[in-house]
Amino acid sequence: MKKLLNEPNAYVDEMLEGLCAAHPQYFRRIGEAGRVVARTDGPVSGKVGIVSGGGSGHLPLFTGYVGRGLIDSCAIGNVFAGPSVDDCIEAMRAADGGAGILRLYGNYGGDRMNFDMAGEMLDMEGIETATVLGADDVASADAAERHKRRGVAGLIYLYKIAGARADQPGATLREVAAAAEKAGRGCATTGVALGPCIVPEAGKPTFTLAENEIEMGMGIHGEPGVWRGPLKPADALAGEMLEMVGADLGLGRGERVSVLVNSLGATPHEELYILYRHVARELAAKGVTVVRPLIGRYVTSMEMAGASLTVLRLDSELEALLDAPADCPFWSVP
Amino acid sequence: MKKLLNEPNAYVDEMLEGLCAAHPQYFRRIGEAGRVVARTDGPVSGKVGIVSGGGSGHLPLFTGYVGRGLIDSCAIGNVFAGPSVDDCIEAMRAADGGAGILRLYGNYGGDRMNFDMAGEMLDMEGIETATVLGADDVASADAAERHKRRGVAGLIYLYKIAGARADQPGATLREVAAAAEKAGRGCATTGVALGPCIVPEAGKPTFTLAENEIEMGMGIHGEPGVWRGPLKPADALAGEMLEMVGADLGLGRGERVSVLVNSLGATPHEELYILYRHVARELAAKGVTVVRPLIGRYVTSMEMAGASLTVLRLDSELEALLDAPADCPFWSVP
Repeated sequence: MKKLLNEPNAYVDEMLEGLCAAHPQYFRRIGEAGRVVARTDGPVSGKVGIVSGGGSGHLPLFTGYVGRGLIDSCAIGNVFAGPSVDDCIEAMRAADGGAGILRLYGNYGGDRMNFDMAGEMLDMEGIETATVLGADDVASADAAERHKRRGVAGLIYLYKIAGARADQPGATLREVAAAAEKAGRGCATTGVALGPCIVPEAGKPTFTLAENEIEMGMGIHGEPGVWRGPLKPADALAGEMLEMVGADLGLGRGERVSVLVNSLGATPHEELYILYRHVARELAAKGVTVVRPLIGRYVTSMEMAGASLTVLRLDSELEALLDAPADCPFWSVP
Repeated sequence: MKKLLNEPNAYVDEMLEGLCAAHPQYFRRIGEAGRVVARTDGPVSGKVGIVSGGGSGHLPLFTGYVGRGLIDSCAIGNVFAGPSVDDCIEAMRAADGGAGILRLYGNYGGDRMNFDMAGEMLDMEGIETATVLGADDVASADAAERHKRRGVAGLIYLYKIAGARADQPGATLREVAAAAEKAGRGCATTGVALGPCIVPEAGKPTFTLAENEIEMGMGIHGEPGVWRGPLKPADALAGEMLEMVGADLGLGRGERVSVLVNSLGATPHEELYILYRHVARELAAKGVTVVRPLIGRYVTSMEMAGASLTVLRLDSELEALLDAPADCPFWSVP
């Protein structure tokens, strides 16, 4: 296992120590086991708190998006494993500014179970909570079964939209949840994997692909996709991904969207821009306007090779929320 | 060659098309072959222009740092190959605000030759120019032969320092060059490679390492380092890199530094933070204060695996310049 680490079972805690040492103005590490990260300047009194969480190994997701105009706190599990119930509770308390709490995380069974149990505890304490799930992976279930879809890179748009809505004076939990839900309905992602990552505790690659083989639609933990076959040119792959997400959203002429071309880890910026070039051309040809495209590493699987494409449909409310100020070490809108 | 591209010889131009399409508020593409990128809002009248350039395959370096408080324009070569003389000239003209031009790039023979020829052309036109070279790679030559050292990740500190100095009202070319030179004297880098990248036109890995083998001190184009051997724990590698750069700079108790822990491409954020954790502890133990650490992908070799450590010694002038506003898609200081 050729990775820069000390003990595999210290990977997450040493990463968190380094993360919080590097960015103390953003992150404070709390919880009995140090597995919760909260805004240094939080909780914000009178603001709806936004809490996320999930397994490690996806930086900047989840923890990295703790910051102004984004999420208030995050519960952190081992690599590709959900956070504990206690840490979910701790994260919610750390986000509690007295206006209720939105739980906003990816649609995975273990995370749901633990966050739901934690939510029941807080309900008993009289803290109002709600849940919106990221479920944007179009390859993971048909449109008729959207509720079964996994959450992948699109979750960061939900962070941004909910975070900006919560920052508006007087915003209620119901209003913040409604904005996140609208973003979730308008958000679709698919990805293509070129190579695996190694989970430190496992010590071996998460999957195997042949020399020239790729897998379209694979999930961010190596979940099976829609086809496996030989590598194709970047334009063909970008076109196929755009076709999948565009058809799912039913995108039409005259619409405005944001686009996220995301590296799963190893794939370099150069190749993301080659993908974006084709996506931008195709959308322009369809009469769809791209605003505020995001190109980079926003949701990864450590050193997995490949890329994902997310499209977020905008209306005037969502576009204004996307443009609103936000600040964390990985995503800043002045 | 498992990379997301179309034709290998279109890699750079398609990347540039995507880059400028994604960030039109920052970048405009000029030059006969479209191989120069300049600030959309430039040149800035009365400001010393700062020009860089070099081979492609290192994003965000070089092109990505075109922006306010950083560099004004950039001449772009093929992957790992220097820019043409004509493009160096074009880049300098695009940066000319009437107060002279600083050429600021890495210490590589081909780049020097072409930038020097381009500089002579501009001198003949009566435009005042100067050159400061990035030469921070401590593994590439002894301290006694600093002028032979290659330029690696530290170049971005020179961009930041020179860019901020040039933004100060009335700053002269001599003053901007002096600030860049001071940063260069106080800047040292070394890196460790875990795996190669593939240059598209070559179609095969730049070097080969065995299953558990790494190379300390390797350059960003795969130039030989100081030792090749089995992988060590992250703390041992971080300690060794810090020892190399700290000894080179002669760092002492009470000093203030910035630190850049940089991924060469594939190495994930998680592992950069594990490295930073050890670096921060060691520096604290030595009585050295870290301000504004940078952790991420700042200077890469596409999908090369590994990381580099750069330390920049600060005095009050350099610290203020590091803190000054800057804005490009890859590095923003509000």
